[in-house]
Amino acid sequence: MISKQIKQDFPILDQAVNDEPLVYLDNAATTQKPLQVLEALRHYYEYDNANVHRGVHTLAERSTAAYEGAREKVREFIKASSTEEVLFTRGATTGLNWISRSYGDANVKEGDEIVITYMEHHSNIVPWQELAKRKKAKLVYLNLTSDGQLDMTDARQKITDKTKIVSVTHCSNVLGVTNPIVELAELAHTKGAVIVVDGAQAVPHMPVDVRALGADFYVFSGHKMCAPTGIGVLYGKREHLDAMEPIEYGGEMIDFVYDQESTWTQLPWKFEAGTPNIAGGIGLGAAIDYLNELGMEQIHQYEADLVAYVLPKLQAIDGLTVYGPQDPKDHNGVIAFNIDGLHPHDLATAMDMQGVAVRAGHHCAQPLLNYLNVQSTARASFYFYNTKEDADQLVAGLLATKEFFQHGPI
Amino acid sequence: MISKQIKQDFPILDQAVNDEPLVYLDNAATTQKPLQVLEALRHYYEYDNANVHRGVHTLAERSTAAYEGAREKVREFIKASSTEEVLFTRGATTGLNWISRSYGDANVKEGDEIVITYMEHHSNIVPWQELAKRKKAKLVYLNLTSDGQLDMTDARQKITDKTKIVSVTHCSNVLGVTNPIVELAELAHTKGAVIVVDGAQAVPHMPVDVRALGADFYVFSGHKMCAPTGIGVLYGKREHLDAMEPIEYGGEMIDFVYDQESTWTQLPWKFEAGTPNIAGGIGLGAAIDYLNELGMEQIHQYEADLVAYVLPKLQAIDGLTVYGPQDPKDHNGVIAFNIDGLHPHDLATAMDMQGVAVRAGHHCAQPLLNYLNVQSTARASFYFYNTKEDADQLVAGLLATKEFFQHGPI
Repeated sequence: MISKQIKQDFPILDQAVNDEPLVYLDNAATTQKPLQVLEALRHYYEYDNANVHRGVHTLAERSTAAYEGAREKVREFIKASSTEEVLFTRGATTGLNWISRSYGDANVKEGDEIVITYMEHHSNIVPWQELAKRKKAKLVYLNLTSDGQLDMTDARQKITDKTKIVSVTHCSNVLGVTNPIVELAELAHTKGAVIVVDGAQAVPHMPVDVRALGADFYVFSGHKMCAPTGIGVLYGKREHLDAMEPIEYGGEMIDFVYDQESTWTQLPWKFEAGTPNIAGGIGLGAAIDYLNELGMEQIHQYEADLVAYVLPKLQAIDGLTVYGPQDPKDHNGVIAFNIDGLHPHDLATAMDMQGVAVRAGHHCAQPLLNYLNVQSTARASFYFYNTKEDADQLVAGLLATKEFFQHGPI
Repeated sequence: MISKQIKQDFPILDQAVNDEPLVYLDNAATTQKPLQVLEALRHYYEYDNANVHRGVHTLAERSTAAYEGAREKVREFIKASSTEEVLFTRGATTGLNWISRSYGDANVKEGDEIVITYMEHHSNIVPWQELAKRKKAKLVYLNLTSDGQLDMTDARQKITDKTKIVSVTHCSNVLGVTNPIVELAELAHTKGAVIVVDGAQAVPHMPVDVRALGADFYVFSGHKMCAPTGIGVLYGKREHLDAMEPIEYGGEMIDFVYDQESTWTQLPWKFEAGTPNIAGGIGLGAAIDYLNELGMEQIHQYEADLVAYVLPKLQAIDGLTVYGPQDPKDHNGVIAFNIDGLHPHDLATAMDMQGVAVRAGHHCAQPLLNYLNVQSTARASFYFYNTKEDADQLVAGLLATKEFFQHGPI
């Protein structure tokens, strides 16, 4: 089902960068948007644009139906029980911040423990550091195995009766690993803790069923799954969201506002103060339609095949180190690596000269890089619109770059 | 300069609603977007889309330049001293929440007073109620004069040495009045307080110079000024922002992340955790270009002329009450009203049947409506693309609605 035809939906990929055909391999940072999503945005702004929820006129009714219809698409996509459990946010980062501030402040006390892992993105570290500081709680890190997977033996020791929150990424944005959320959720629940899952690198690439996972909270970002920037989702079990206080206050989220106090409206709007990113939500709905058309199982399998194709070729490059699992079946399409004697920024710059977009840096995961004892890495990350030809261009570009830096221009 | 030609830039206005030509008069809720803004969005997504700030590849450099270029457009538009004072937010609501939580929590103590007015939007009420609760501070309301203007005599009495924050709307979203910010800022500063200005209804309609106003903080939303949904601005004086703690934590806003603590990066990014609404920022920049092309003085004058044209016609309708100042020179393009014996929702529904989009409800200003002793009102709100013909349609529609409800179908 997935083929080169798909590139037609992404005109941005059909351009030259530095006189070379663009090969976009920075999908873990953000993905491109298909014409179908851009068309949904254009249609909204050219026909239906109005503020939602509070209007009785036709455009307001149409925009409300489209926006709330998108929420139902999200619900179905992640198999939430109800749209009341689906909050629109600005992105995964906002979701994690809301959970830590609302659920965290209400449920974590002095001496309690919050458990995260060494493979978290800063957005799933810093909010918990600050919560721990506010509450005099302890932030505990789970170790990784030597091939960069989560050390479940360590998890079984560190998740204890003191643990109130376990917050873990579903898929690492550096190591290319997928964590055993079901097992971690059971572990957390056995100890009376809740589990928060950062799904920013998972939802775009595989079928996700938040109930089957046992997640109490699950967050992700639209822009990493073909949707516009500025929209994301916070899923929370209704029992939690019902008990939680909103983090932002204003219009849309209130029931009554008296001079000195206010009451909140029902879920999900209780958390959504102010005019939402209406077009962003509608665009996310269109992105979900597009992904569903391709099939999330098919996308997952296609990317696995691509990794099985490219990983051995990368590993075969002399002096190149791939971080994370070495077996392609344990490694998803996020591939971080370094080449001996080559600074990742120089490498990324040289690759850009050849039209290949890869990222270099700490990937918002400084504790992980410190744990791995590296300053920075290069990272190539694939999506379903990438092809084996793109993978070949990556490998050829790396070989040419290596040659250039080791021996100068040919 | 402003003419009917402008409607060509807004194809959404050229449609039929209930078989009548659409007359969109719900601009205080959200405005329409010109083709120039939609084209900027399309161009970004079809040519430049990549994550910002952290990439060395060409698309990342282009998107960063476009996004930060938009920030400079905002700076120039509101005359801030530096882009370090211009924070991108999700909208005005988020800005007010950040100020109340960051500046508020750090600077308001038990017994202090926070001063707002009876004409505030819920987004400029509820965050202060919650701050007052957290700090055992007192929330004080400034009264209005009998024609709905701010009572400056009351302001001079209630803004005292106990006042730590004065937070006031620049233009009411119900009464159509513009508040004397310069005078209020001087009053606040004399007492050692800061002034926060909600500019959501002002920036789209008049030239705003945050320094000339003396504002310590100034917030507004893009979607009310021709920009996409999901983007807004929080301006803050550098001395305040420097001293303030960020509200959201994650990528982009850190300098170093250690296992147990982190340090923040420089302004403005210290406050901007996570992938921003990149396209939204760029769209806001394009909206500013569009508004600058028309001229903010010209827009202001055009709308004043429109009000001078329509307000007397509304006042002449038997049984119709306009809220706020009765003199057109004191009333901007937000016109709230009721007609005796007609529920505003019925009125808005009947107007929609005639193609005229007006809003009905509490307009997120329950304390104001309570103060005015009304449950709800209808509201027609104008923007520069509205014409005298639109105003005529409003008046004709109201007369027909009145006739229909009083005497049944003709």
